[in-house]
Amino acid sequence: MIFSSKLLENAVNEFSKLPGVGQKTALRLVLHLLKQPIADVEAFSGSLTRLKNGIRFCQICCNISDLPVCEICASFKRDKSLICIVEDTRDVMAIENTGQYNGVYHVLGGLISPMDGVGPTDLNIDSLLERVKNNEVAEVILAVSATMEGDTTIFYLYKKLKDHPVRITAIARGIAFGGELEFVDEVTLGRSIATRVPYENSLFK
Amino acid sequence: MIFSSKLLENAVNEFSKLPGVGQKTALRLVLHLLKQPIADVEAFSGSLTRLKNGIRFCQICCNISDLPVCEICASFKRDKSLICIVEDTRDVMAIENTGQYNGVYHVLGGLISPMDGVGPTDLNIDSLLERVKNNEVAEVILAVSATMEGDTTIFYLYKKLKDHPVRITAIARGIAFGGELEFVDEVTLGRSIATRVPYENSLFK
Repeated sequence: MIFSSKLLENAVNEFSKLPGVGQKTALRLVLHLLKQPIADVEAFSGSLTRLKNGIRFCQICCNISDLPVCEICASFKRDKSLICIVEDTRDVMAIENTGQYNGVYHVLGGLISPMDGVGPTDLNIDSLLERVKNNEVAEVILAVSATMEGDTTIFYLYKKLKDHPVRITAIARGIAFGGELEFVDEVTLGRSIATRVPYENSLFK
Repeated sequence: MIFSSKLLENAVNEFSKLPGVGQKTALRLVLHLLKQPIADVEAFSGSLTRLKNGIRFCQICCNISDLPVCEICASFKRDKSLICIVEDTRDVMAIENTGQYNGVYHVLGGLISPMDGVGPTDLNIDSLLERVKNNEVAEVILAVSATMEGDTTIFYLYKKLKDHPVRITAIARGIAFGGELEFVDEVTLGRSIATRVPYENSLFK
């Protein structure tokens, strides 16, 4: 791309570093912002630097939080003996949206991925083990994505957790509700038959 | 969406104001930036405010430029008697990429769109008429998108320009090169038959 302005080129290059944003999209976004009032553009860029400078993580579950302890960990209504282990704050939001979960969380901050140079020490695993050791935790739920990185992480966590007196469970895998059998991939379908459950357990209660 | 942090919510809301970016994408982008070093985030937001504060437009063609007169208008290699009228800087870049054009440009900065409250006075039309009046312009090429707003703008410009001693042309419309007839929309196909050209004119020289 040939730009008529260095400033424009610089801004477009910065935007095209974002995941899923190419040069054309970056140019579209930058030109959109350019048409906005200066106050809006400053609010936009200010919100980012404020977030980056002011970001804090809950001392207990490592979720993004404005307070030292997040609302979920601080709530007396939550079952502290039940910890759901997730990859990042998006998963917490997704599970919270279901309204089906009343325990607390532990946010790993990523998944073990040797390809990307992410090892166990880069994740919030030590703090998880501390929680399991020190507190009265009855059950941990492994709720990470069913990818290679997710499976590697689950395997690692299982090895670390299995000697503690704690029940280890994983979220149910299988055909999604409303999913049509013919469109389901072979691995999911094959495993969902191999790991079939008694009919009365398969019902949503 | 329920956010665990006000700062996060604020940044996501700012991102989701961008065109084509919903809350989920905004969250993905913000979390990506959050993982980057602080210097990168500051470079990102700094590039925007620098652009917004430092932005200038070429005094002649109104294209985005760091200098008072843009490189194209300042180049002695360019044919100043030929003006290509385009909507914005993206169109200039697209035409420059073809390598087929040696004239200069005039950037309108938008199209007439009563629905969006954009009238002729919001566009760089007066400066265009000044150029046509004062300088030795032989031809203006109307090169705007074939949308309703584009057609309205072309019609308005044509009315304003037709009394000047200048040749008014429009870019050729029809079936794209490599386009398959059966997938072309009816309007384009119908018009391309109605406005058919002598065979020797249709060849790319």
